[in-house]
Amino acid sequence: MTLGRTRWAIAEGWIPSGGTGPEPLQSHETACMLNAGDADAHVELTLYFPDREPVGPYRVVVPARRTLHLRFDRLEDPAPVPRDAPYASVITSDVPIVVQHTRLDSRQAANAIMTTVAWAG
Amino acid sequence: MTLGRTRWAIAEGWIPSGGTGPEPLQSHETACMLNAGDADAHVELTLYFPDREPVGPYRVVVPARRTLHLRFDRLEDPAPVPRDAPYASVITSDVPIVVQHTRLDSRQAANAIMTTVAWAG
Amino acid sequence: MTLGRTRWAIAEGWIPSGGTGPEPLQSHETACMLNAGDADAHVELTLYFPDREPVGPYRVVVPARRTLHLRFDRLEDPAPVPRDAPYASVITSDVPIVVQHTRLDSRQAANAIMTTVAWAG
Amino acid sequence: MTLGRTRWAIAEGWIPSGGTGPEPLQSHETACMLNAGDADAHVELTLYFPDREPVGPYRVVVPARRTLHLRFDRLEDPAPVPRDAPYASVITSDVPIVVQHTRLDSRQAANAIMTTVAWAG
Repeated sequence: MTLGRTRWAIAEGWIPSGGTGPEPLQSHETACMLNAGDADAHVELTLYFPDREPVGPYRVVVPARRTLHLRFDRLEDPAPVPRDAPYASVITSDVPIVVQHTRLDSRQAANAIMTTVAWAG
Repeated sequence: MTLGRTRWAIAEGWIPSGGTGPEPLQSHETACMLNAGDADAHVELTLYFPDREPVGPYRVVVPARRTLHLRFDRLEDPAPVPRDAPYASVITSDVPIVVQHTRLDSRQAANAIMTTVAWAG
Repeated sequence: MTLGRTRWAIAEGWIPSGGTGPEPLQSHETACMLNAGDADAHVELTLYFPDREPVGPYRVVVPARRTLHLRFDRLEDPAPVPRDAPYASVITSDVPIVVQHTRLDSRQAANAIMTTVAWAG
Repeated sequence: MTLGRTRWAIAEGWIPSGGTGPEPLQSHETACMLNAGDADAHVELTLYFPDREPVGPYRVVVPARRTLHLRFDRLEDPAPVPRDAPYASVITSDVPIVVQHTRLDSRQAANAIMTTVAWAG
């Protein structure tokens, strides 16, 4: 099944530094990627910032017929994502995928969540 | 009226296991489907996971000129949806429909909600 | 300026019956409509339900170069919108508009919010 | 890299007047803009209201390969954005950008968040 696009953008990015709960209630942002096709997806992420050059690519594989919910706070190579700072991301894949963005914010006593399908460019 | 598309994807999926409130405040995720047309929609859902083959199809009917808000935690056949685990879904229909995704998270003292129109592929 | 589309759908609809706060913190859903053009928009809404025929049209005007944030709980003619019940809506206009959907849920001690651009059909 | 569109609309707009937290937990709305291209983006925002003529343009620059998360409550010229009042916005750019809209609502003890990719017109 061919489903989705090969280039996606998430203009919003902000990982709160604090959190009141245990994992998985720590504040985090996620790029939920679905590869409904029959070939593995080789995905590259590039992060953009307000005041410096982009950082990347970060590389992950979403296997055929699998979903990967990638947490931005777990990206390490080539550099971790700073907390409490704005960023944006561009995601490219060699085969079509679908990307949805979520944030869990647990800085206060009750968590807050938000989501949107990313921009397919 | 012909409105929508015949294939949709929701890359995000996560049903929290706990909840502080009575129904309808239990944590859940929903695929809100609108069939504004004059023919019944025969809908199939397939669920995708990080580490195993897809499960499905789940089958539902959205009658002509009706909406169905399908809760993922009530899917039973061919298998229930695991809680506290990432998944994604692909929804196909034999006539055009519109699909919107929501989550209610009531793990903490106050509930949290999120929504997005699904990806039309 | 011509901006938007003439037909929109919101597959999600649910107005919680309770609320902990005063206005504007009562639970509600809103169709935010933007008419950036130079002609008034004559808008019709039709509501869809799980188990009965659609209700409508509800009629509103969004004047030229204006926005109207229409609360579903204030619709009266031809019938009020039931609370604690699923619905969906189709919005048509004689000139292009942009529609975004929001819900404020204040059933618990802290409010929750969600939004998405509607489906342009 | 050419990514995005040159005209965007956000039909929802509402900046709550109160807030329980310190910055950055004050209630606010943000237009997250990503310019993944190699030329600076000259961006103009125009705000729409229910009962008066649009206000603008507000002008900002999103440099090449940068993101700007623009808070509406910090707009000053030609006029500040009223709080506790509905508005909408149209965003134009001389080069393609991607726009995502968010609101943080901290009027109650726990914050609430929502987001959606804007409408690309």
